[in-house]
Amino acid sequence: MRAVIPYKKSGAKSRLSPVLSLEEREEFVELMLNQVIDSLKEAGIEKIDVLSPSAYGLEGMTKARVLLDEKDLNEALNRYLEEAEEPVLIVMADLPLLSPDHIKGITSTKKDICIVPGKGGGTNALFIKNPSRYRVKYYGSSFLTHCSIATDSGQNYEIYDSFLAGTDIDEPEDLVELLVHGKGTAKDYINRKFKLEVSRGRVGLVPL
Amino acid sequence: MRAVIPYKKSGAKSRLSPVLSLEEREEFVELMLNQVIDSLKEAGIEKIDVLSPSAYGLEGMTKARVLLDEKDLNEALNRYLEEAEEPVLIVMADLPLLSPDHIKGITSTKKDICIVPGKGGGTNALFIKNPSRYRVKYYGSSFLTHCSIATDSGQNYEIYDSFLAGTDIDEPEDLVELLVHGKGTAKDYINRKFKLEVSRGRVGLVPL
Repeated sequence: MRAVIPYKKSGAKSRLSPVLSLEEREEFVELMLNQVIDSLKEAGIEKIDVLSPSAYGLEGMTKARVLLDEKDLNEALNRYLEEAEEPVLIVMADLPLLSPDHIKGITSTKKDICIVPGKGGGTNALFIKNPSRYRVKYYGSSFLTHCSIATDSGQNYEIYDSFLAGTDIDEPEDLVELLVHGKGTAKDYINRKFKLEVSRGRVGLVPL
Repeated sequence: MRAVIPYKKSGAKSRLSPVLSLEEREEFVELMLNQVIDSLKEAGIEKIDVLSPSAYGLEGMTKARVLLDEKDLNEALNRYLEEAEEPVLIVMADLPLLSPDHIKGITSTKKDICIVPGKGGGTNALFIKNPSRYRVKYYGSSFLTHCSIATDSGQNYEIYDSFLAGTDIDEPEDLVELLVHGKGTAKDYINRKFKLEVSRGRVGLVPL
């Protein structure tokens, strides 16, 4: 089994720009990436690749292999799947609430594919036992698309139902989940900049 | 064991007012309430109370007992807990993705308390084995509060980690989750009014 994490530091997380500067966003995604790598390692996954269109920010990466591919995310991942000769776990880099236990649960599925839905129709992780038989299609409603691709290719799938693994950090409101449910360096980083604002609706953020 | 569902139809779900009229919101919450009751029954829970400050919209309720209490949500629920002589599952009425399997999982916890986090720091469901020893405090960051109340009263707790049970329907973006992951009459209702709008970020809604 191997894991691959698509990653791009340059100009990362533009939807967080209302609350974090470019420099802060780039620091923050690096912290999240490192947390995801640490969780994978702690779950016992030894072969970890970071797939990026650019070496920017990955010059000092020693915890994982760096693969550069300038192609679009889907093309790069599908090339990766074609060449993989063992089960592949694709995991997004913006999942600081993903724990080693989640990773063990996802990769121990009895089905051909395990799909972890993200917020807003997305796919946060995808475990594929036979990568040569599967192709990904991220963007848009990728969760439904990934379910269909499994079915259309005659493979069965499990939906991994987790609030924490399902929380990808893209919008300012997602930082609330990190503060409420998170731990580690990514949470600490946000915790130094914001506090929770308690109201009668959902909790919000205010700058410190 | 008994279940209690706090409910208020009148003027419900004001945060959905950008996309649904008052009349639509009131119809929609009634559909969600009925789905939650059906899931509880299917999970084998026979004693179900709907706790409401008003009889409005509950005149024809035959599937559950209706309890009227004009007090604030927390006061009404705490009075309910004080008087309960058996384990209590408090479940919110806006959880159309909550399944009978989730309910069985939550109520089979080995801990004293099982807490189901909702989006934005909320609490979507709370299973309390010894209700006379617990008090609720909804609003604000109630998830963290409910964890503390358990600890402070010497009771241990499980956090039930579910994307689906964790999706309470309060904001327009939550309707996207209902369309992507839901089924049943509440989904059908939203499906007749909106379609998913696919972009490179999270999926959005557009009116039909």
